[in-house]
Amino acid sequence: MKYYAKPLNRLINEMNRLPGIGGKTAQRLAFHILSMDDRDAFALADAIREAKTSMRYCSVCGNLTEEDPCVICSDEKRDRSVICVVESPKDVVAMEKIREYRGLYHVLHGVISPMDGIGPEDINIKDLITRLQDEEVQELILATNPTIEGEATAMYIARLIKPSGIRVTRIAHGVPVGGDLEYADEVTLLKAVEGRREL
Amino acid sequence: MKYYAKPLNRLINEMNRLPGIGGKTAQRLAFHILSMDDRDAFALADAIREAKTSMRYCSVCGNLTEEDPCVICSDEKRDRSVICVVESPKDVVAMEKIREYRGLYHVLHGVISPMDGIGPEDINIKDLITRLQDEEVQELILATNPTIEGEATAMYIARLIKPSGIRVTRIAHGVPVGGDLEYADEVTLLKAVEGRREL
Repeated sequence: MKYYAKPLNRLINEMNRLPGIGGKTAQRLAFHILSMDDRDAFALADAIREAKTSMRYCSVCGNLTEEDPCVICSDEKRDRSVICVVESPKDVVAMEKIREYRGLYHVLHGVISPMDGIGPEDINIKDLITRLQDEEVQELILATNPTIEGEATAMYIARLIKPSGIRVTRIAHGVPVGGDLEYADEVTLLKAVEGRREL
Repeated sequence: MKYYAKPLNRLINEMNRLPGIGGKTAQRLAFHILSMDDRDAFALADAIREAKTSMRYCSVCGNLTEEDPCVICSDEKRDRSVICVVESPKDVVAMEKIREYRGLYHVLHGVISPMDGIGPEDINIKDLITRLQDEEVQELILATNPTIEGEATAMYIARLIKPSGIRVTRIAHGVPVGGDLEYADEVTLLKAVEGRREL
């Protein structure tokens, strides 16, 4: 016995393929979509199609963008002497939200991960090297995630760039603001002590 | 500063409108969709559009269906003497999954809820009365949810139908299989004791 009509089944399966959406949630979402106004449901379908059609990667920094180069790369007011290296376009959004960083970005689209067969040539490092030929760049901020792969990638890039004389920095590791020492893991606490600053 | 390009922003907003999808999840899903193959992303958009276009409500029982009447209503092998009354099409799927029930269904599309201004005339009760004119029907199983509104709706329908001589039953309330008496609330346990059966 099949429980769902074919179009409903197809919708549930497609929903189920999204990350973090299990079988039950996919079913709940599919039923919700069927109970929505036609207009709202079609708006969702169109939004997916439109986003997928009109968004591309910036040919300069690799960030998601509608125009190429992206609004950040083509913004005359941004500081062209600093490039912040991140793993994914999501991280650009996170950095922009602090409203403090005024430099440019470079999106790697991944991290070096030998376990998954991802080497330096599989991520967007080559374009970064090309960008650094520009003499304007004075500092490279490595803002990959504080994971094993993120650290390894930061190390790899640092070693690659350092000889060129450009200042290479890494974002600080430590206890998160609002966090509790008691619940911080040992490595984080160690990094926080190592990175202590005079007041 | 806007953090997202317009098409991405629109996709995040549309995702955010789905139940249980908050801002962070909507962002994560949107970025995931943008990183998918064109084919997969379009398949999702098409599945939404197709499901919304081709699925309708069965004119007999009110269940979601591609053909009208639905596969259950038009199945000659099903027992036409029993009708199971449920709140939503999701509940039909739940009932079908027990693989034991062979009768028909009637979907109310809601419950009586004076607090939300939903009266008996706002849900699919009128069609149910019409169906009961058919002399084949011998039993009406009330399988609305065990909530205050579900109980009230079951009571309302029971009082309405009883005088016609049709047998009206309510699904049992009790301790869920695999559950623990210790964690069952008082009302559930009371119902379980009230509904005890001889072994």
